[in-house]
Amino acid sequence: MERNIKELVQRMTLEEKAGMCSGLDFWHLKGVERLDIPSIMVTDGPHGLRKQDSSADHLGLMASVPATCFPSAAGLASSWDTELARQVGVALGEECQAEDVAVLLGPGVNIKRSPLGGRNFEYFSEDPLLSTRMAAGHIKGVQSQGVGTSLKHFAVNNQEERRMSIDAVVDERTLREIYLASFEGAVKDAQPWTVMNSYNKVNGTYAGENEWLLTDILKDEWGHEGIVVSDWGAVNERADALAAGMELEMPASGGIGERKVIDAVENGELSLEKLDRAVERLLTLIFKAVDHKKENATYDKEEHHQLARKVSSESMVLLKNEEGILPLQREGSVALIGAFARKPRFQGGGSSHINPTQVDDIVDEMTRVAGEEVELSYAPGYRIEADDVDESLMADAIQTAQAADTAIVFVGLPDRYESEGYDRSHLRLPDNHIRLIEEVAKVQPRVIVVLSNGSPVEMPWLPKVQAVLEAYLGGQAVGGAIADLLYGEVNPSGKLAETFPAQLSHNPSYLNFPGEGDRVDYREGIFVGYRYYDTKQIDPLFPFGYGLSYTTFEYADLTVNRTELTDQDEVQVSVRVTNTGDRAGKEIVQLYIRDVESTVIRPAKELKAFAKIQLEPGESKVIGFTLDKRSFAYCNVDMKDWHVETGEFEIQVGSSSRDIHLHTRVTVESTATFIPTYTRNSTLGDIQRDPANKKLLEQALKQFQEASGFGGDDAGDHADMMDAMMKYMPLRALVAFSGGAMNEEDMNELLEKLNNKDHGIRA
Amino acid sequence: MERNIKELVQRMTLEEKAGMCSGLDFWHLKGVERLDIPSIMVTDGPHGLRKQDSSADHLGLMASVPATCFPSAAGLASSWDTELARQVGVALGEECQAEDVAVLLGPGVNIKRSPLGGRNFEYFSEDPLLSTRMAAGHIKGVQSQGVGTSLKHFAVNNQEERRMSIDAVVDERTLREIYLASFEGAVKDAQPWTVMNSYNKVNGTYAGENEWLLTDILKDEWGHEGIVVSDWGAVNERADALAAGMELEMPASGGIGERKVIDAVENGELSLEKLDRAVERLLTLIFKAVDHKKENATYDKEEHHQLARKVSSESMVLLKNEEGILPLQREGSVALIGAFARKPRFQGGGSSHINPTQVDDIVDEMTRVAGEEVELSYAPGYRIEADDVDESLMADAIQTAQAADTAIVFVGLPDRYESEGYDRSHLRLPDNHIRLIEEVAKVQPRVIVVLSNGSPVEMPWLPKVQAVLEAYLGGQAVGGAIADLLYGEVNPSGKLAETFPAQLSHNPSYLNFPGEGDRVDYREGIFVGYRYYDTKQIDPLFPFGYGLSYTTFEYADLTVNRTELTDQDEVQVSVRVTNTGDRAGKEIVQLYIRDVESTVIRPAKELKAFAKIQLEPGESKVIGFTLDKRSFAYCNVDMKDWHVETGEFEIQVGSSSRDIHLHTRVTVESTATFIPTYTRNSTLGDIQRDPANKKLLEQALKQFQEASGFGGDDAGDHADMMDAMMKYMPLRALVAFSGGAMNEEDMNELLEKLNNKDHGIRA
Repeated sequence: MERNIKELVQRMTLEEKAGMCSGLDFWHLKGVERLDIPSIMVTDGPHGLRKQDSSADHLGLMASVPATCFPSAAGLASSWDTELARQVGVALGEECQAEDVAVLLGPGVNIKRSPLGGRNFEYFSEDPLLSTRMAAGHIKGVQSQGVGTSLKHFAVNNQEERRMSIDAVVDERTLREIYLASFEGAVKDAQPWTVMNSYNKVNGTYAGENEWLLTDILKDEWGHEGIVVSDWGAVNERADALAAGMELEMPASGGIGERKVIDAVENGELSLEKLDRAVERLLTLIFKAVDHKKENATYDKEEHHQLARKVSSESMVLLKNEEGILPLQREGSVALIGAFARKPRFQGGGSSHINPTQVDDIVDEMTRVAGEEVELSYAPGYRIEADDVDESLMADAIQTAQAADTAIVFVGLPDRYESEGYDRSHLRLPDNHIRLIEEVAKVQPRVIVVLSNGSPVEMPWLPKVQAVLEAYLGGQAVGGAIADLLYGEVNPSGKLAETFPAQLSHNPSYLNFPGEGDRVDYREGIFVGYRYYDTKQIDPLFPFGYGLSYTTFEYADLTVNRTELTDQDEVQVSVRVTNTGDRAGKEIVQLYIRDVESTVIRPAKELKAFAKIQLEPGESKVIGFTLDKRSFAYCNVDMKDWHVETGEFEIQVGSSSRDIHLHTRVTVESTATFIPTYTRNSTLGDIQRDPANKKLLEQALKQFQEASGFGGDDAGDHADMMDAMMKYMPLRALVAFSGGAMNEEDMNELLEKLNNKDHGIRA
Repeated sequence: MERNIKELVQRMTLEEKAGMCSGLDFWHLKGVERLDIPSIMVTDGPHGLRKQDSSADHLGLMASVPATCFPSAAGLASSWDTELARQVGVALGEECQAEDVAVLLGPGVNIKRSPLGGRNFEYFSEDPLLSTRMAAGHIKGVQSQGVGTSLKHFAVNNQEERRMSIDAVVDERTLREIYLASFEGAVKDAQPWTVMNSYNKVNGTYAGENEWLLTDILKDEWGHEGIVVSDWGAVNERADALAAGMELEMPASGGIGERKVIDAVENGELSLEKLDRAVERLLTLIFKAVDHKKENATYDKEEHHQLARKVSSESMVLLKNEEGILPLQREGSVALIGAFARKPRFQGGGSSHINPTQVDDIVDEMTRVAGEEVELSYAPGYRIEADDVDESLMADAIQTAQAADTAIVFVGLPDRYESEGYDRSHLRLPDNHIRLIEEVAKVQPRVIVVLSNGSPVEMPWLPKVQAVLEAYLGGQAVGGAIADLLYGEVNPSGKLAETFPAQLSHNPSYLNFPGEGDRVDYREGIFVGYRYYDTKQIDPLFPFGYGLSYTTFEYADLTVNRTELTDQDEVQVSVRVTNTGDRAGKEIVQLYIRDVESTVIRPAKELKAFAKIQLEPGESKVIGFTLDKRSFAYCNVDMKDWHVETGEFEIQVGSSSRDIHLHTRVTVESTATFIPTYTRNSTLGDIQRDPANKKLLEQALKQFQEASGFGGDDAGDHADMMDAMMKYMPLRALVAFSGGAMNEEDMNELLEKLNNKDHGIRA
């Protein structure tokens, strides 16, 4: 329905306008009855709907309405399947329509700076490209159903420790290439109806009061058309936030927020124009929701559960599989060890904690999928609510494991280990889980470990087991998905969206996480995740992009449609992938780029494209990728632009960040030019980079050499040193060392000439 | 002789004063004939005297007068023997007196941030305590002879790349704890007559124009009484430099410097008072030199050579010694392989490159020490001036090595690899050296490698050889020292003053060295050297403080005279060390401290004391150390002071940073207090740290809990999350979430109460 929003805003009083900029209660926006502006509802996500009835409780203690619990983002991202993310989004959108929810709060795209981050299970990846593409898929799916999303938490909210007061200090290049890039693609490609600002400060200013983030970058540079909503309670000074570009404060603030906005307008501290623009955006959102509302919408719970099962199986990553122990044969006896087999860990704690429509029991699902020929036994082995070993449960588990042909040990991180609100302090499994694996491995030569956890764990026990399946937090259908994978009903195809470090201390943020007091310095800069491990040449336990399959793939015929291009051109890359095994399977083909030589600091490689393909046994497909300027560029803060330094780039194609099968090179030429300004402190080397300057310098150098004896042809053994000294010498030193032959006036005259040539240098 | 310097200054004209602030020529200060102020001479050091005759050549191309070449600082520091450093200083002072040199330019105490640094061979260590103590010994020795020193390069000159224009960006805590600390101890303890400022910028300001460094810290805080002299050519704007605290510009600047000072005084930009103070300091220096001049001084060249031999043998580090291959028996045949055996590498390139009085030939010295029973052969194996393999030399070397009972391979870094002026780009030995080791190891089961290099190298060939002696740059008596050590005339006692990384990429500065353009960020902060490797738990090839002996030592009886103290107290630590082998030997006992728990980022351990002791077989000694506030403190930039956070500290005593034999704990209580200022953004957790605040908060919390449902007793499964959320919640959120029960006025009233209690909190 067409409406004249601008005209509507004009009819509103200042109080009505200011009122709309804060919530009505915990979950509703304010409407204006007088003007037929309705109130709409938002609710927590993102991997399921958490709609509560009571606003007196905001943290999921009270039951929320039942909803399908899909795998959390850490798992979903491991599918590397943006279409699957879209399908999940469609399902979530259907549930929102059925529950009269206008905006589902998610997805979360904060970068996994540290594996300790308490909400990492809710986030996609350590890599901004993978993260932003998965988010875009999710957003498109939800919004295709006429329901909004809220891309969160904008920005640099990468820890729970002191999250409401911490100041994240990050250089701009790192922000642009890593932390903001994870939002950028999704905003540009999928236009989330809302973006949620985070609690923390970014470089000294609360994210919610950060005009550079909310207005300059999000709205102006990226073209975000929706509104910015505060994270719940993330408003410091309401009027400052509104001025910075935060349209909506949530939840209701008891009238305080409204009052401050009114005062600010009346004092002239906030322009009415800014308030009007905010209200326009709010009204646009509200009416978009209203117009897309489907009356009497319902959804098929069983169908969604089946989708959750499919997604779950695509989200799990087979980390180890020796002696072909997997897939399991449908014969003999299998011991299912570990209390998670009966009470699976399938979601994380906090605002995303939902009330599932049903939950698979792993033992039951294993029984169903295994069939009648298999004899299954079960022993809990540990108590979920404790870390210490229960010797009686342990003894029973050892006996059960020993008696079977194969033991599957279900371990991971209990709820209390991973939650919104606090970070982990280590990467270890609970003591009783570790002991269980070790004890079982002593009596049983065939041990498969199934891990349920939202973020990486250390695995000192890895050499003792034959297989490891990382199930992540698999959602309510986790049991069926595990059974499908272990028995080969589904061929594993997930790959890690994050590095599993050999030990916590190897993580790039280790020395600076979670910071000191209310300040955390992101000193590792752009070296997040594999960018760090690969550049520092530190071996991870499992690298980014890694995951096994029951079949094998071969890579061949890497081609590019051009080997020389400018930064304005695109280059088409293709590669042939063949399923060389005897099972159908899916492969995630990854394309990384390495800048062969650079004057700026760059990682050893960066993910620039990926594709997930399905291949029957023997089948081949040619996959095509398009690379453009951004694929080769880094953020040049001085130029305020993405910049490709002229030179060679290596295109690497492989099955993980550490399994590069093919590579080729292209040369990209920059079309950017810059006009350098030379000063008395410019080095001779820098001045001589422009061939046109050489002649201008000639006489000065000659005078200097005659006077000083530096830099002549008779340097002999010291030629390297003389060359280096000349190269790094500032122009002023020519004067100082010339013994009077050259004076400051000569130097200034020379500078005049150097600075008044009418051309720039190719950057 | 007593002089009235102030009165003398008053008699000088502005031109004479300004004139004195720049050099007369390359190596002389200006005098004033009219006033009987003489000109004195300075000359390059620090491990020998480089006095040139001609001022037309400043880089050591022309021959300088012969002088004793002692081991360069990288080696000397490996002795960990401050008394030995003093003895070297005494000898250097004698040579200066004999050559009429008033100030010897050195020692250099820049911290080895990266093993690639081109001048690392001239510097002592990656650890500021070891560095500053060695420097103090050196300075005391030289100055005891009435000759001045120049502690250099002040400050943060840790690379050659773009050294005249680079801006080193380093946080203040890192400066204070690492880079400046290396100067601080030597300035306070040994009062070098001069300090030389470096070429580079520090946080945006040239070191030579950095008033904070030259005046606030060096002169005012540390009490430096001498002058600051520019590194040669390190003057940007002379008047600014003088105002900042640089008294002397070197070399002469053709009158430009003087002119600028005069103009600045006449313009009122530089106060005459500042100029007068600078001239007072210069005159004090000049007359100190004059008064200490020993007429007709000479020195005993042979005695100095013997001292150089002793120092050299104390400076070498035995890195590997398997199957007791060392010390060599005086029997059978030994092949000496490698051109360095005839043309040893014994010093580095650049301003420290001197003209030795004589140079030991390693083959000759080995022959002399081995005695007549040993049959020695020699083959060069490679050409020193090339990296590529000379197949004929190689074939000959293999044959020679194979024919002997034992092969000693002399390899390392040729001159061109290490010099002032440029940094290394990798840590590899030349290809022909690596091949030589590998080929010899193929035909000879007994291989000893002797390395001559000024800084660490990677050793992929290490498993193939039985022994490695790191000879560093051993000075002119290197041959005798090597022979003494290999044949056991001297028992090796050196220990590494720097970490040898397994590979370059593991170095903490790797991602940020040498920076981008004219800026280098010290992002690793305080994590330099072992502080990084130990905290990140990355195994080095050889750790800091490591070195083998031909005997063995046992550590016992670690005791402290108190286990509880305040930061105003000292604690006495003692440990008993016993020589449990059958040879006399020296042990370097190292004491490290670890802060057991800290709210600020601290390294896993830090060196706080060390001692080198000599023990006969079976002999025991008790070594005592005194620890004080600084031993436990970190630099608290906000408090502008060293601060000991109250708590437990572990005292670790061992034979290397990775071989801690004994440890004990003490509790140190801080006597510092601070009065926190609470704001609306203070977290509840921080406010509650002061027990006195709990009562004040009580009512606000109750209101909030009733209104919000947060933080009650019914959190159940979510208790951890609720606790964390409450702890990290800012005060303002109580208002926002109280649903109107608490308003901003209430909050402000509460803040008033919190901020007006009349006591501070123990910091």
